[in-house]
Amino acid sequence: MPPTKASEYDVEVLYDVPRIEEKLIIRALTNLGIKPKLTPVKDTPLVFKESAPSVCIVRPMSMYRAAYSAAVRESSGSFTINSSEAIIACGDKVLTLSKLASAGLRIPKSVVALTIQSAEEAYKSIGLPLVDKPPIGGWGRLVSLVSDETAYRSLLEHREMMTSQQLKTHIIQEYIKTPGRDVRVIVLDNEVLGAMYRYKQENEWRSNVALGAKAIGFKPDEELAEICIKAANAIKGVFVSVDVLESDGYFLNEVNGVPEFKAFIEATKRNVAADLAKYVIKVLKR
Amino acid sequence: MPPTKASEYDVEVLYDVPRIEEKLIIRALTNLGIKPKLTPVKDTPLVFKESAPSVCIVRPMSMYRAAYSAAVRESSGSFTINSSEAIIACGDKVLTLSKLASAGLRIPKSVVALTIQSAEEAYKSIGLPLVDKPPIGGWGRLVSLVSDETAYRSLLEHREMMTSQQLKTHIIQEYIKTPGRDVRVIVLDNEVLGAMYRYKQENEWRSNVALGAKAIGFKPDEELAEICIKAANAIKGVFVSVDVLESDGYFLNEVNGVPEFKAFIEATKRNVAADLAKYVIKVLKR
Amino acid sequence: MPPTKASEYDVEVLYDVPRIEEKLIIRALTNLGIKPKLTPVKDTPLVFKESAPSVCIVRPMSMYRAAYSAAVRESSGSFTINSSEAIIACGDKVLTLSKLASAGLRIPKSVVALTIQSAEEAYKSIGLPLVDKPPIGGWGRLVSLVSDETAYRSLLEHREMMTSQQLKTHIIQEYIKTPGRDVRVIVLDNEVLGAMYRYKQENEWRSNVALGAKAIGFKPDEELAEICIKAANAIKGVFVSVDVLESDGYFLNEVNGVPEFKAFIEATKRNVAADLAKYVIKVLKR
Amino acid sequence: MPPTKASEYDVEVLYDVPRIEEKLIIRALTNLGIKPKLTPVKDTPLVFKESAPSVCIVRPMSMYRAAYSAAVRESSGSFTINSSEAIIACGDKVLTLSKLASAGLRIPKSVVALTIQSAEEAYKSIGLPLVDKPPIGGWGRLVSLVSDETAYRSLLEHREMMTSQQLKTHIIQEYIKTPGRDVRVIVLDNEVLGAMYRYKQENEWRSNVALGAKAIGFKPDEELAEICIKAANAIKGVFVSVDVLESDGYFLNEVNGVPEFKAFIEATKRNVAADLAKYVIKVLKR
Repeated sequence: MPPTKASEYDVEVLYDVPRIEEKLIIRALTNLGIKPKLTPVKDTPLVFKESAPSVCIVRPMSMYRAAYSAAVRESSGSFTINSSEAIIACGDKVLTLSKLASAGLRIPKSVVALTIQSAEEAYKSIGLPLVDKPPIGGWGRLVSLVSDETAYRSLLEHREMMTSQQLKTHIIQEYIKTPGRDVRVIVLDNEVLGAMYRYKQENEWRSNVALGAKAIGFKPDEELAEICIKAANAIKGVFVSVDVLESDGYFLNEVNGVPEFKAFIEATKRNVAADLAKYVIKVLKR
Repeated sequence: MPPTKASEYDVEVLYDVPRIEEKLIIRALTNLGIKPKLTPVKDTPLVFKESAPSVCIVRPMSMYRAAYSAAVRESSGSFTINSSEAIIACGDKVLTLSKLASAGLRIPKSVVALTIQSAEEAYKSIGLPLVDKPPIGGWGRLVSLVSDETAYRSLLEHREMMTSQQLKTHIIQEYIKTPGRDVRVIVLDNEVLGAMYRYKQENEWRSNVALGAKAIGFKPDEELAEICIKAANAIKGVFVSVDVLESDGYFLNEVNGVPEFKAFIEATKRNVAADLAKYVIKVLKR
Repeated sequence: MPPTKASEYDVEVLYDVPRIEEKLIIRALTNLGIKPKLTPVKDTPLVFKESAPSVCIVRPMSMYRAAYSAAVRESSGSFTINSSEAIIACGDKVLTLSKLASAGLRIPKSVVALTIQSAEEAYKSIGLPLVDKPPIGGWGRLVSLVSDETAYRSLLEHREMMTSQQLKTHIIQEYIKTPGRDVRVIVLDNEVLGAMYRYKQENEWRSNVALGAKAIGFKPDEELAEICIKAANAIKGVFVSVDVLESDGYFLNEVNGVPEFKAFIEATKRNVAADLAKYVIKVLKR
Repeated sequence: MPPTKASEYDVEVLYDVPRIEEKLIIRALTNLGIKPKLTPVKDTPLVFKESAPSVCIVRPMSMYRAAYSAAVRESSGSFTINSSEAIIACGDKVLTLSKLASAGLRIPKSVVALTIQSAEEAYKSIGLPLVDKPPIGGWGRLVSLVSDETAYRSLLEHREMMTSQQLKTHIIQEYIKTPGRDVRVIVLDNEVLGAMYRYKQENEWRSNVALGAKAIGFKPDEELAEICIKAANAIKGVFVSVDVLESDGYFLNEVNGVPEFKAFIEATKRNVAADLAKYVIKVLKR
């Protein structure tokens, strides 16, 4: 018995906390004549192999909620944007770095330490300042810039108290000195939709918009466009945002498999939701 | 700069807690003239893109330690047994079920609930008795057979107290009534090495050997062999054990990406470690 | 330097989530001409030994927030209702049972197990059905009625996964068969304000109002009044609610150090908030 | 029915992980003709109100295991060294500071913050460098010296991820500049047994012996002796070690309710175990 898909809806939008992005996607689909099924994944049992829409747009903010929603729909034969594989490859930064590096892309010097002992060892080889982050977590959470040994010891002790092996794992990276900003590029269906700088807020070394960073659009050069498309392919994502650090050239750093794009639209004037809706039509017509 | 691999060793065995299995693998490799590099992953910083052996046998008991060890080695171009993708596809049972079902294999009726509310909803559609388990965890841990509503409420409250979204996620399955045993098959390189029954201990409904189950070897029929090879391919594993439930036919249930095989060798007399070592030679010669 | 208290306010109400109870207390104080300082403890750094009101009414829902608020105010010499000692003696049920039993009061047959191994041992001596609960947690959370061994094993595994030693600790009690209800009595300043039955909802064995129980007032007999006053004194509480189980006589079970009383007022028509305000005046006049 | 104690043993030693201290205590008791009951609390169900020895020496390393062991024995009328109340008053540093300050003893300037928002507020009033620690935890664990804002933000984010309200609570203290050491005094039965300095190891700002500090005995002056006895009484401990910071005078900081004394004996040559055994005899003769 092969998986089946058959539903009164052609398209589904799965979400946990509805944001402006989800509203824009639904409106863009409606503008093209598609009425999507709206599925709040926190309230909805997700049944393997039950009939499902042809295309499922996976939007939960929580990484595992997104990945699991996608995985269940894939068991029904639906096309998921993004696939559970891509969501997990983006959501777990050890996997992201592995896939980016395997594709020949340049990443910051990075070490994985599975225990506090190993982290102390790794710290010596990377030197200060360094960046320490766990594999999972978004919006810059727990991503730490470490400048002195006392602070690092304290950080290591704190992480050791966490329960999950993922949060006990350290990704330790050289600190890439950037011009006070990082670069975010959105890729859809092997095409770059645009690029923006995120300028860090004073008193904050991270450039997450959630942490007060300012977004300004710019036209990406050819090299940047090319490596971002390669990055999207490396993690098998059809609709992703790619985070790039500039220093002496570009470093690929993170990829987001359930991309936010409110600030991106404001900065670049590119109607990302409309692009996504057009892509859905293209998939439906295949 | 493409990933590089170049190491004085051809083969590496990565482990956290060395078990009898790891010793058997090392001995089998030695018998074929290979001296593997032994890497205790808890003590060793794992460096992306550093030179690494051609073949890495990934043996940590902890799922994430195994997946992360494999991922880092893959960034160096090493061939990993199993790949990080396969280890995660096996280690997270939502992903396993998704891939098995997508490959057209028969799985128990299964629902994913991302919250306690959704689990209460799902419970009504599955009915009692049911099996509830989180996506991650080995050796039967937290896999619960639920026979009455009061006990289920209590279980739901307990899981709600856990921190990780993975442990808050419920896989709710129909209870498959088996003849007091389940079936375990080991697949290597698209071939079935053998099969064994695991007879449950009295007072224990789960058939994990760690929970006292007795293992007895048997010759798998053609259908069983075929679905297990398909299951291994569905999760892209080259060396896996497949758990099957028998009732009115076979149900695929779980796949293990870092298979234990001590009990299997005793039950089937098949020298799994020697087979694995031979396979490593084959890969090295490619 | 002895602790000092000197504040423009005589009375303070400390709270985290304001409920109807806190509003009633504030109104009752106002009716008696007292304008209390309102302190949201989640937003307010609590400074040891800073000047503070003479009487602090401690109302945070979270047990540790309540205990810590009280403790800091006590360092300034304030009189706290209740004291940090009483709040902790109520909030941790191992301590509650110890103090009730030490005071010669009758409690259900109870055993503390600090590990899963010890819980398995204790289970044999108590027999089924039994009640298992962790020392901390309110509103009946994690309080489990266990009727069969398989369900108990599952519960033990779940609790073992929790991080805090408190949640890993098991209070295992004989199940007291009551007439479908339990008894709640409120004690203030060595006097019983009233009593109510809480009738369990169908499909729920616990009689927490939060779990749908129905409250009905009644006049407590002399014995009940006496043991509840003794219980309040045993934990050094001036304003507490006492939970009693009836079977062949009364069993003292739990005491609440930050008592809710909305349902109690409805059931008994006793204006608990006004009583409390009058008591505050009495303390101020000392 | 009053609590009863009646046991074939007069004295019990309760422990989880037996250390040199426990062996010394048992030997000292034996030297005085007492054969104590030895109770491994991890393996032993602790039954409320069951017959128990007259004196229980409470030695588990884990604070809650110690407090719960003591509490259960107290329900049987046993005299506990220390009482559950003292163990909790020492084990939770918010309670310790409250009781020390209430007794008029000098403590470092200290603020309790129950949330990350409140901690950010408190940070401004204390200034840098500051010390941040959670209420519970021994051997200096999670006690952090914070020198810059970026490191503090990272620490706050880490603590926010923890599950227990206790670990989410911040005790924020001014950093007391000491002469590279702190002072530890042991008090038994209102008498000072001796004092030692703990000199911090290089590269470590904390002076815990577990973190490599060196211990050297000295004769305490009268003021030091007096405040340590007051501190012991403030937390109602009969056998405690008191941690004192020296700067412009003494600051009381922490009290340990299950004191370790191996390093203390080496530094001061005082036979603490023999003193304790003599005290037990005194209690038995009451």
